[in-house]
Amino acid sequence: MAVALAVPESLLPIAGVRIGTTRAIRAKRRDDLTLMALAPGCRVAAVFTQNRYPAPPVSVCREYLARPGAAEEVRGLAINAGIANAGTLGEGVRDARECCRLAAEWLACEARQVLPFSTGVIMERLPMARYAEGLGRCAEGLEADNWAAAARAIMTTDTVPKGMSAEVDGGARVTGIAKGSGMIHPNMATMLAFVATDAAVEAAELRRWQKLMVAETFNTISVDGDTSTNDSFVLAATGRGGGGRTRGERRALREALMRVCAHLAEAIVRDGEGATRLARIEVRGAANAVCRRVAESVARSPLVKTALAAGDANVGRFLMAIGNVRGGFAPEAVAMTIGGVPVLASGGRDPRYDEDGAAAAMGAEEVTIAIDLGGGGGGVRMLTCDLTREYVRINAEYRS
Amino acid sequence: MAVALAVPESLLPIAGVRIGTTRAIRAKRRDDLTLMALAPGCRVAAVFTQNRYPAPPVSVCREYLARPGAAEEVRGLAINAGIANAGTLGEGVRDARECCRLAAEWLACEARQVLPFSTGVIMERLPMARYAEGLGRCAEGLEADNWAAAARAIMTTDTVPKGMSAEVDGGARVTGIAKGSGMIHPNMATMLAFVATDAAVEAAELRRWQKLMVAETFNTISVDGDTSTNDSFVLAATGRGGGGRTRGERRALREALMRVCAHLAEAIVRDGEGATRLARIEVRGAANAVCRRVAESVARSPLVKTALAAGDANVGRFLMAIGNVRGGFAPEAVAMTIGGVPVLASGGRDPRYDEDGAAAAMGAEEVTIAIDLGGGGGGVRMLTCDLTREYVRINAEYRS
Repeated sequence: MAVALAVPESLLPIAGVRIGTTRAIRAKRRDDLTLMALAPGCRVAAVFTQNRYPAPPVSVCREYLARPGAAEEVRGLAINAGIANAGTLGEGVRDARECCRLAAEWLACEARQVLPFSTGVIMERLPMARYAEGLGRCAEGLEADNWAAAARAIMTTDTVPKGMSAEVDGGARVTGIAKGSGMIHPNMATMLAFVATDAAVEAAELRRWQKLMVAETFNTISVDGDTSTNDSFVLAATGRGGGGRTRGERRALREALMRVCAHLAEAIVRDGEGATRLARIEVRGAANAVCRRVAESVARSPLVKTALAAGDANVGRFLMAIGNVRGGFAPEAVAMTIGGVPVLASGGRDPRYDEDGAAAAMGAEEVTIAIDLGGGGGGVRMLTCDLTREYVRINAEYRS
Repeated sequence: MAVALAVPESLLPIAGVRIGTTRAIRAKRRDDLTLMALAPGCRVAAVFTQNRYPAPPVSVCREYLARPGAAEEVRGLAINAGIANAGTLGEGVRDARECCRLAAEWLACEARQVLPFSTGVIMERLPMARYAEGLGRCAEGLEADNWAAAARAIMTTDTVPKGMSAEVDGGARVTGIAKGSGMIHPNMATMLAFVATDAAVEAAELRRWQKLMVAETFNTISVDGDTSTNDSFVLAATGRGGGGRTRGERRALREALMRVCAHLAEAIVRDGEGATRLARIEVRGAANAVCRRVAESVARSPLVKTALAAGDANVGRFLMAIGNVRGGFAPEAVAMTIGGVPVLASGGRDPRYDEDGAAAAMGAEEVTIAIDLGGGGGGVRMLTCDLTREYVRINAEYRS
């Protein structure tokens, strides 16, 4: 029951990336193991969860990437769904290293040139025999035009595969896939995203770009503070295609990468567990850090989220959520609109408040909550979804 | 469906406090207006919400109490349920002042000697004509032995009235009442608590005591960060009874007051909307501030709370919630038990982990989650309840 989220129509192959998928981990009749082979010359940048219990695959990625020059030598990504290999301590680390070693055999590289990713149930070990067997099938099936299969093979509680491609002036291409119920409800160890371009981008520049992209996309859906143990996002540039050479082409490329990341981030919220409504929260009129605290307070309030579920323009709940942020703005200067309908002015009910209009706006499948804190500057956006009984059902019945 | 919470059996009258209740605000057939008359010589201490949109009654309380000597001159508390008089701006302030003026007429004092309290729906104005009429009936019905009626008359979504009395060595008495779905889910503007003793306590000492009590009781149930707009807690000492004179008697009195507040705070969680399970979260082994952040992260995590609802010992979710607290402890030193059953050790699954034992403990109506962060010192407790579909139903359907 994703909110207006379609299966991606076509995902463009990226020269220098080949992909194989198979069914290996779970009993379900669905692929859940993916091998991505990256051609020599490919550069990668990666960011990971900030949780203090990073899953072993995350620790191993960090270890391998810490070597000088490592970002220019990655040859493969080994990704499984079903079991997160999280909370598995030393045994989990050994398993994650073994995943890399096995993939390296097929890719004819060293284990440290493969990065491992796992997503799924926490506290269970990977079935290494099935993993090893499946990896062989993935390697034998490596093909360039296989992104759509990978978008499906990395899914867990996702109901729709998430992916997008873009073509850029100058000939560069971008394709990205992601999975996750989002930071919003990481009942599984959660978000994975892989985005590649065939343009040539130096590793240091790729890292700078990635930092900006994360700040504006994946980190704006972190609405309940629960950063999961396995979150990983890899950005790769193979340098095997055209484009990205002139200044204008590079800007266009950067924008295309940002567009793909923004789409993937939004897709994760649209496919949030139990979600029936998408809310765009826009906050301005104070320092960015203050705007962000207000946006987060609104986005994570269970009372705002249940009001969203009901399509109820319960202005008092918004007022309460805004008022729980200390300092940085004057409460009596705050204004708010719901879907363009004025509801708050001067920190109280707007005299133009129109219950029917606000209710209609709040009842739409997508709603924009615009909050003006009344001062200068600032501008923060955040995406969230509603909190429904279905969310509780999924998360209370999972593992039972 | 409160968690093992009984209607208080008998609430002792407190010399110097008379109470009248009536039905005035809502259409429901239930009292919702309460007048408490305090005899001359009574001292009060009061704490209020930290929300930046305090409801007008809170603002008026603060204004009246800011005058020098005000804490020794309060003669009445006027309390209504049904409408919170919150988000009502200047009109709401005028209404709250008028409530005090009307009560003062009956109590033969000045308006500033009456403190107003409201709880209920946000953004609606009080029906002042009905309020005025009801206040007269309250004043005519003032009686000492009326605490049980008041405990009922201040309820909103509460399913069980909350109150407790204690008798102290030396003859002092304590009686307290509270209402609220707690900070846990303040869908109404939420917690009110009134606690009185007949012992004589100076205003400054009363304030010191209250500060300690709040820190150890009402503030340990603040599990979702949503501080509501109307939260108020008044502590009164009438000096009309015996006790509280020797050092030992004062200690016993202080302990009795603490006991009553702890009971009321716990009762609020037990009666949490949709709650089916009570969780006591105990964290030690780090600085108190760090322990508190860990306790809050666990207590407010929707994934922990839905696992509680399912009675599912989903250790990975606890690990994730603990791991989302930055700094102050070593992740690899953390241990945890659920109802005494070891589940985490050295930051991973305890080798003694016993799925059936943990599931049985987690499935009990009350469960203690004990987290040891592995260092010295510290000791923080927090109460929370589970997150159920019923919670979402109540909060999504309210006002609809």
